[in-house]
Amino acid sequence: MINKEQIAAEYQVIQDEICASLEALDGKSTFEEEKWEREGGGGGRTRVIQNGNLFEKGGVNFSAVHGKLPETMQKALKVNHEDFFATGVSIVIHPNHPMVPIIHMNIRYFEMPSSPQTIRWFGGGIDVTPHYIIDNDARFFHSYLKTVCDQFNSAFYNRFKAWADDYFFIKHRDETRGIGGIFYDRLIATDELSWDDIFEFSKAVGRSFIPIYSELVNRNREKSFTDDQQQWQYQRRSRYAEFNLVYDAGTKFGLETNGRIESILMSLPPTAKWLYNYQPEPGSEEEKTLSLLKKGINWV
Amino acid sequence: MINKEQIAAEYQVIQDEICASLEALDGKSTFEEEKWEREGGGGGRTRVIQNGNLFEKGGVNFSAVHGKLPETMQKALKVNHEDFFATGVSIVIHPNHPMVPIIHMNIRYFEMPSSPQTIRWFGGGIDVTPHYIIDNDARFFHSYLKTVCDQFNSAFYNRFKAWADDYFFIKHRDETRGIGGIFYDRLIATDELSWDDIFEFSKAVGRSFIPIYSELVNRNREKSFTDDQQQWQYQRRSRYAEFNLVYDAGTKFGLETNGRIESILMSLPPTAKWLYNYQPEPGSEEEKTLSLLKKGINWV
Repeated sequence: MINKEQIAAEYQVIQDEICASLEALDGKSTFEEEKWEREGGGGGRTRVIQNGNLFEKGGVNFSAVHGKLPETMQKALKVNHEDFFATGVSIVIHPNHPMVPIIHMNIRYFEMPSSPQTIRWFGGGIDVTPHYIIDNDARFFHSYLKTVCDQFNSAFYNRFKAWADDYFFIKHRDETRGIGGIFYDRLIATDELSWDDIFEFSKAVGRSFIPIYSELVNRNREKSFTDDQQQWQYQRRSRYAEFNLVYDAGTKFGLETNGRIESILMSLPPTAKWLYNYQPEPGSEEEKTLSLLKKGINWV
Repeated sequence: MINKEQIAAEYQVIQDEICASLEALDGKSTFEEEKWEREGGGGGRTRVIQNGNLFEKGGVNFSAVHGKLPETMQKALKVNHEDFFATGVSIVIHPNHPMVPIIHMNIRYFEMPSSPQTIRWFGGGIDVTPHYIIDNDARFFHSYLKTVCDQFNSAFYNRFKAWADDYFFIKHRDETRGIGGIFYDRLIATDELSWDDIFEFSKAVGRSFIPIYSELVNRNREKSFTDDQQQWQYQRRSRYAEFNLVYDAGTKFGLETNGRIESILMSLPPTAKWLYNYQPEPGSEEEKTLSLLKKGINWV
């Protein structure tokens, strides 16, 4: 059976693959890496790309940390052991171009020694936040995810799609962060799917990132856009910041456990705007986008 | 003894005075008002000024709400009654000019029927967030607050200044939001200060806003500034957004009680920037400002 070292090693390979592909896609900027160590144990490789042809700010982070879990986090995770190991790859990309969406991907593995057997689970997901929702792109994205999920379990896509709708939700705005995607947590082996199978699923989610995002980028990168559309992009980014600072579990975990602050908040947008009480024009593309920021839309 | 209607009425007068003075100071933009009603009882007057000569975005809000307090809020406030009344004036101003500071002021009154006697308290404060800390301006600001406080109780300034340092603190950055000011909560009558006295103190804090901010504006509004200094301003604003979304009690209260979202988040900056791992030049004004964002500096 796969062990935590193998999982962390494979996740690093996925980080490398993704960074190389994103650099090729951008064609100008390259990632800068910072290796960091965590006081309590472990560390990571934060990689950030900025001011590119395509990517205004993006981060592709790998970490593998271990040590003692603070009591508050034990409660939050509903576990009663303090030794833990966690590894994952986490990505957020903010493109320059308002017709290219923001994308987020995360794959992670958590483990805690326990008797009679080790507590372990996988989590992750991938979701897209278009500044302008383009129906065909949304259909392509969700269909791709469904294909990935269906290779492992025919129930995964519907379950994880609904989970993403619920998770990536800005309660105080009554709107979803974007068009959702998939989100799953505490995924464990069953009679049908072994730990190896679930690890394969985790890798498949990670490796779906590049084909998905390349397609979404290439469909839209040559489109012209206006200054008003860019301003709208900055406004949508402020909603992204609201979600990450108010609701995102990973961000909260990082802030509460004194994580490396620049790695945790690398997800925040390079430029964001909060205008008071902005209302898009009736019938506009902006209004259409707002109308589609809701749960339960079937895109496949 | 003053009653809640008198307090709300006087707070509205203070809102009117402040809006008139800010419009005169700006010289171009005027406030737009939205009157709103709260489903559970009461309402408010949200007033926002945007795109002025001086003020890029500012809000001066009055509200007087009543009704039943949700159980979660009863716990947070450590009370066990559900009927409540709350009124207040709340201000946040984001200026265009990087040498003019962001300012925040709040005065509020809370009441809850109970036996043998009504639960009631005052709260409030005023604090300043310079993009560039100017020592003389910080000294002027704190000295002014000390003079206001000293008229009521010689212990107020030190106590409320320390409280502001602790409250306006961005824990995950290990930096204060700005140069502090005063903050107080649950202020009640004592043998020395009657309820009327405390109400007078509350009004004096409210009425210190205009002389303080006019002075800070007029000292700096004619200074020239560079694009780099404006970019730094946008970066400092992103810290302001982090504080308000992650820590501010009023914002949390609003988000959790389904308040009027545009009024609650009017405090967020018009443009904010998050750059990855930005480090100011050694010896620069930016570095000096960061070095002064800490608790316990004595400015008087």
